[in-house]
Amino acid sequence: MKNYVFGVDIGGTTVKLGLFDTQGNVLDKWEIPTRTEDNGSHILPDIAESIREKTKLIDRDSIAGVGVGAPGPIDGDGVVHRAVNLGWGTFSIKDTLEDLLNLPVMAGNDANVAALGEMWMGGGQGCRDLIMVTLGTGVGGGIIVKGKMLTGFTGAGGEIGHMHVEDREEETCNCGNKGCLEQYSSATGITRLANRLLASCDRDSVLRQGEVSAKTVFDAVKARDPLAVEVAEKFGKYLGDTLASIACVVNPETIVIGGGVSKAGEVLIDFIRPNYEKNVFCGSREVKFSLATLGNDAGIYGAAKLVLDMESV
Amino acid sequence: MKNYVFGVDIGGTTVKLGLFDTQGNVLDKWEIPTRTEDNGSHILPDIAESIREKTKLIDRDSIAGVGVGAPGPIDGDGVVHRAVNLGWGTFSIKDTLEDLLNLPVMAGNDANVAALGEMWMGGGQGCRDLIMVTLGTGVGGGIIVKGKMLTGFTGAGGEIGHMHVEDREEETCNCGNKGCLEQYSSATGITRLANRLLASCDRDSVLRQGEVSAKTVFDAVKARDPLAVEVAEKFGKYLGDTLASIACVVNPETIVIGGGVSKAGEVLIDFIRPNYEKNVFCGSREVKFSLATLGNDAGIYGAAKLVLDMESV
Repeated sequence: MKNYVFGVDIGGTTVKLGLFDTQGNVLDKWEIPTRTEDNGSHILPDIAESIREKTKLIDRDSIAGVGVGAPGPIDGDGVVHRAVNLGWGTFSIKDTLEDLLNLPVMAGNDANVAALGEMWMGGGQGCRDLIMVTLGTGVGGGIIVKGKMLTGFTGAGGEIGHMHVEDREEETCNCGNKGCLEQYSSATGITRLANRLLASCDRDSVLRQGEVSAKTVFDAVKARDPLAVEVAEKFGKYLGDTLASIACVVNPETIVIGGGVSKAGEVLIDFIRPNYEKNVFCGSREVKFSLATLGNDAGIYGAAKLVLDMESV
Repeated sequence: MKNYVFGVDIGGTTVKLGLFDTQGNVLDKWEIPTRTEDNGSHILPDIAESIREKTKLIDRDSIAGVGVGAPGPIDGDGVVHRAVNLGWGTFSIKDTLEDLLNLPVMAGNDANVAALGEMWMGGGQGCRDLIMVTLGTGVGGGIIVKGKMLTGFTGAGGEIGHMHVEDREEETCNCGNKGCLEQYSSATGITRLANRLLASCDRDSVLRQGEVSAKTVFDAVKARDPLAVEVAEKFGKYLGDTLASIACVVNPETIVIGGGVSKAGEVLIDFIRPNYEKNVFCGSREVKFSLATLGNDAGIYGAAKLVLDMESV
């Protein structure tokens, strides 16, 4: 009888780990540093060591396995194809960690895995077809189709932050292209939109009183600052239009908005939804919008769920 | 032992039917009229009657079942949610036809089913992750993920013809929105782009010598008519950009171009690919482009394959 499952979320500075029961209750949760030196070769051994510590008191036969989310394209076989932030090239996370732990391992891209987590125990609970968009430093995305992650041919499925949304952009995105969604709808992107608008005019705004951030923009929106509202409208147009395009492709039941920017709350959806509804195909108009609820834990939840499902689309 | 499978493609005027062996060889192929009167209530009984005729000489136990493609949103359970062209409301195609035939039935949207057909025996053979775009009177789309159709929550998956690509459009698309891909990249859309350009200038062009169509435009492109080339460039920009967006979402191995417009040949891809490559996320840049090879038979092939797979994503 399998009673336990581990979920691991590898970030650029910290690895989050969680021990779950098979119903999705967190029994334990902890972190270890991500050692990216030596091409990240210590990361998986460190994780294995940390899990071995925890499993001393658990019957190994009761452990379903270990799920892993990591930042980079990871295909359906658990092979990562370069994860720059971790120093990783191309190798099988699944095989490597299975050898270290002698437990079943599943691996997926962190944003895809977070989407699975929100579907399982978060803002998308009860849905099997959803889009999750994570608005943080960048824009991450995860697509869930009939309950499974859409990983794509080489693990680059759900990279919605790099959908092209603006032909007139002159600055280059981190990915090398110009005019990606991420340049307008991430925390950084919202700040950029605000600073551009502030520099282009001398209209009064509370945003002129201190450092501009996605948080100060949406705080100002709540205080009805007209310039901040204009920034939010631009943000909502880019993101709403893009989500409408994605919905034409995947026809979701729910769209979950997560990441640091989502702390602004329902007001975000007020700026996204009208643009979404204007442009989406009628068959996908009745979508539910919801906010993510698992915060930084979405990754460990989704990683655990990946093992419980044991196969991704 | 199941040796045979039927594939049925319901169009607005004609129903195409095919009898296949399980390796994908067509053993027989025929058509019956689509009787749309009386809310399309004769369509499925007519199909059942036609199949019963053919099965008189076949051991029923050797028939795997009947697959059906139809124009409208059809969910994973084989339920159609209004098919305007056929006069249909909402009902289960699967249950209705199973009752009539006493054989297993699977059903899907015609464009999605055609994509499955091209994957199985056409331009996408050997691939399990593909986008098919059908450039006909409208623009249809089908997304295949790990070998299965992406049907979506209510059967509206793959409706890429209604992705919003132009904010400045003033004419309304058939779907009720403005600025859909279909308005620029279908046969009708290409004709529209050409007529608009011809009306906006008095430049010389062979297109001024007769009625303009997608065919005359691409014939003129092959004859290096500069105005026709400009039309093809606009077409390629809209379609290439949109395919790049879709690829960011689903990370395909192959993109198959089908429909009447695809008869123009490889020249189409020459106008699509540069725009695609410019804007797509690096992880999806190495995609293969190919032309559909099954023509109007893609639907019956895909419908047959749907039965052989017996479950869609």
